[in-house]
Amino acid sequence: MTDLTVDLGNALAAEARPGVSEGALDRLDDRVARAHETITAGMAADGFGYASLGLPERTDPGAIEAAVADLDADHVLTVGIGGSALGAATVSAALGLADRHHTLDNVDPVETRRLLDALPLDRTTVNVVSRSGTTAETLANFLVVREAMDEAGVDWTERTVVTTGAEGPLRTAATEQGLPALSVPEGVPGRFSALSAVGLVPAAVLGGDIEGVVRGGAAGREALLAGGSLFDYPGYAYGAVAYALEQRGATVTAMLPYAESLEPFAEWFAQLWAESLGKDGLGQTPARALGATDQHSQLQLYRGGRHDKLVTLVRPRERADMAVPATDVEGMSYLGDATLGELLDAEFEATEASLAAADQPNIRVELPRVDGPGIGRLLYEMEAACVLAGELLGVETFAQPAVEWGKRAARGLLGGGEFPEAEAVAEKTTRVVGGE
Amino acid sequence: MTDLTVDLGNALAAEARPGVSEGALDRLDDRVARAHETITAGMAADGFGYASLGLPERTDPGAIEAAVADLDADHVLTVGIGGSALGAATVSAALGLADRHHTLDNVDPVETRRLLDALPLDRTTVNVVSRSGTTAETLANFLVVREAMDEAGVDWTERTVVTTGAEGPLRTAATEQGLPALSVPEGVPGRFSALSAVGLVPAAVLGGDIEGVVRGGAAGREALLAGGSLFDYPGYAYGAVAYALEQRGATVTAMLPYAESLEPFAEWFAQLWAESLGKDGLGQTPARALGATDQHSQLQLYRGGRHDKLVTLVRPRERADMAVPATDVEGMSYLGDATLGELLDAEFEATEASLAAADQPNIRVELPRVDGPGIGRLLYEMEAACVLAGELLGVETFAQPAVEWGKRAARGLLGGGEFPEAEAVAEKTTRVVGGE
Repeated sequence: MTDLTVDLGNALAAEARPGVSEGALDRLDDRVARAHETITAGMAADGFGYASLGLPERTDPGAIEAAVADLDADHVLTVGIGGSALGAATVSAALGLADRHHTLDNVDPVETRRLLDALPLDRTTVNVVSRSGTTAETLANFLVVREAMDEAGVDWTERTVVTTGAEGPLRTAATEQGLPALSVPEGVPGRFSALSAVGLVPAAVLGGDIEGVVRGGAAGREALLAGGSLFDYPGYAYGAVAYALEQRGATVTAMLPYAESLEPFAEWFAQLWAESLGKDGLGQTPARALGATDQHSQLQLYRGGRHDKLVTLVRPRERADMAVPATDVEGMSYLGDATLGELLDAEFEATEASLAAADQPNIRVELPRVDGPGIGRLLYEMEAACVLAGELLGVETFAQPAVEWGKRAARGLLGGGEFPEAEAVAEKTTRVVGGE
Repeated sequence: MTDLTVDLGNALAAEARPGVSEGALDRLDDRVARAHETITAGMAADGFGYASLGLPERTDPGAIEAAVADLDADHVLTVGIGGSALGAATVSAALGLADRHHTLDNVDPVETRRLLDALPLDRTTVNVVSRSGTTAETLANFLVVREAMDEAGVDWTERTVVTTGAEGPLRTAATEQGLPALSVPEGVPGRFSALSAVGLVPAAVLGGDIEGVVRGGAAGREALLAGGSLFDYPGYAYGAVAYALEQRGATVTAMLPYAESLEPFAEWFAQLWAESLGKDGLGQTPARALGATDQHSQLQLYRGGRHDKLVTLVRPRERADMAVPATDVEGMSYLGDATLGELLDAEFEATEASLAAADQPNIRVELPRVDGPGIGRLLYEMEAACVLAGELLGVETFAQPAVEWGKRAARGLLGGGEFPEAEAVAEKTTRVVGGE
């Protein structure tokens, strides 16, 4: 029911440049087996990062639903950024809730004003998410949203839920104001937290099937624990082949879902992959895309450009469909025998074949439907793939050291303390063209 | 007033790996001067593709406004894909009209149903765009939208505007139904058509400042014609350095605007760059991003990953701002002295310095404001940059041959004719993991 398949056919050396030979896959599988021991030992010990892959067992959807039960709302406004925002957006979109779940994940004054003006604040739940409780963008936005609710005569303390760590300014605020508060799970980096309260609270407030999401993740975990080989576990198949292709020159990974409800998934994947594997001069660069739309934007490059890309095509095997009305206009009539879903599937298969005909490596990922179990399984498999790829690359998958430098510089620039990084900003080399 | 600047400081060899030395820039400028002759000769002759850079002179905003003057509407629904959609979305967003301009640029039945249900069809103008008038996705969506309007009791012939070529099914339909019809300019590929009716009709219907957009483009054209060197024309500075960095290993280009209203610009740029330059095994892969949001998603990779990326940071020098309310919560109080705009600018400068400190090449692009003249100038400069980069790479900038294979395969799969490409789809190599 939550079956997910990964088809590696068009990534084999017989079909693609770069590609992986059967012999290389066999040899790689020995390393996969050893990595599997590390991963499962880490899961058993709830080790830092590895604990992420245990979430489907630890997350209690009923407890999340109970915590937000009093928050009657038509809309949810998530205030969070990066790993505190993308998982929730992905889950909500897959559950058909994208129109009612909004995210403030930037500090753009124009967009913030627009969103606050557009939302019915007296029917909106504010969902504030930050593990540390100190993320500058999130705290600034939370202060702005509180003031906007005050000005609209809405008691924000009645309409706010917080998800944060055990300590910090947000935890303090939640305790002082008596806000419902959930915990960011220990040992789970933000980008791996979609299958916890971090990813599930907005859907829970809006009545979405979060139990199904967790069930889908649990099916992934069962399959991982029963596996250990890239030849039988789809998450490992994906992670191992992505690794092997990166080693052979595919330094870009284009994620191309054929479903608008999976568009945030591509963005979530881009963070997962970039922040986990982009270190030590390694890691594929994610290019997020959307089928069929980006066939008219990116396909020329994917087919005719460098052989440095892995393209992953993702689709549900079933979806709600819509007939194209018949017409007798010449050149259009063949469309009247089709549905939009058939057209989209034809585009999917044509694009896949088009890449294959140009020897450009690609992988097909299929899930049963875009629904709770489907998205839960997809998120889990890609997390497992990423953890495996990190083991094979030999990087610190669960750290993100390069993000800290900029945070200190920004804080120094804003007068939030003495940071030498802020001084480097003033020393920028300039070479300006234009402007006279 | 529409001044745009390109700062190359952090892309110089003294600062970045890869980087461009002063000597290399001097030598490259000789080639830029020769390319400039080709480009201006092409503009003067309205040659295929080069005609794009003459659009600001040829486009008559008053004529576009007159053509749509009877289309009284609160919303515009653009039915188009790729170059027929992204330019219009970019212009509308920059003019603050994103909430009222919607796009059907996919054939996802779920999303199509959602959008048609959400829109007040009796207050919506349908804007159908396809040069050939045969784009399958666009025609299918147009048929679906017409039926939805019929079912809602709305006369779609009263609410539809068409932008298309001189011939084809759409031109025929427009003539037969007496619809207002505008022309896709001759010699201008879709991805270069933003500064024509293709990009301007939705904003014109919604009362946006399309005259300002064209004026911004015209300022870019004036500067190009007065220039000829990468040292004095910002579009050439950008294009030449992007080319030089690609030659030196920056095979990825990450476009990172610090304004939500420029998010569609990054998507437009991704098409412009990918479809124009992604051929003959060349061309940078665009990674579209958004500041400050993606600092929490992509920055780890940009800083700690391979030195194969050019990061372009774009911002307006002025924007409407919003104060962060004061607070006495410990660890948050420094934010209360700032505005959201100051926070966003601090993030911009911190990210730029953070990349520079890691020797990762980056370019700063600044425009006066995100408004009509600002976006017109930005689009023009990036088009000029792309045309120059194409000359330097020696590719056919204005063609997109690799897209055709997939179109024929999809059409064959749908029974729209006999195409050998459709047979290749059935011959796919499969190697499936999972699904038992």
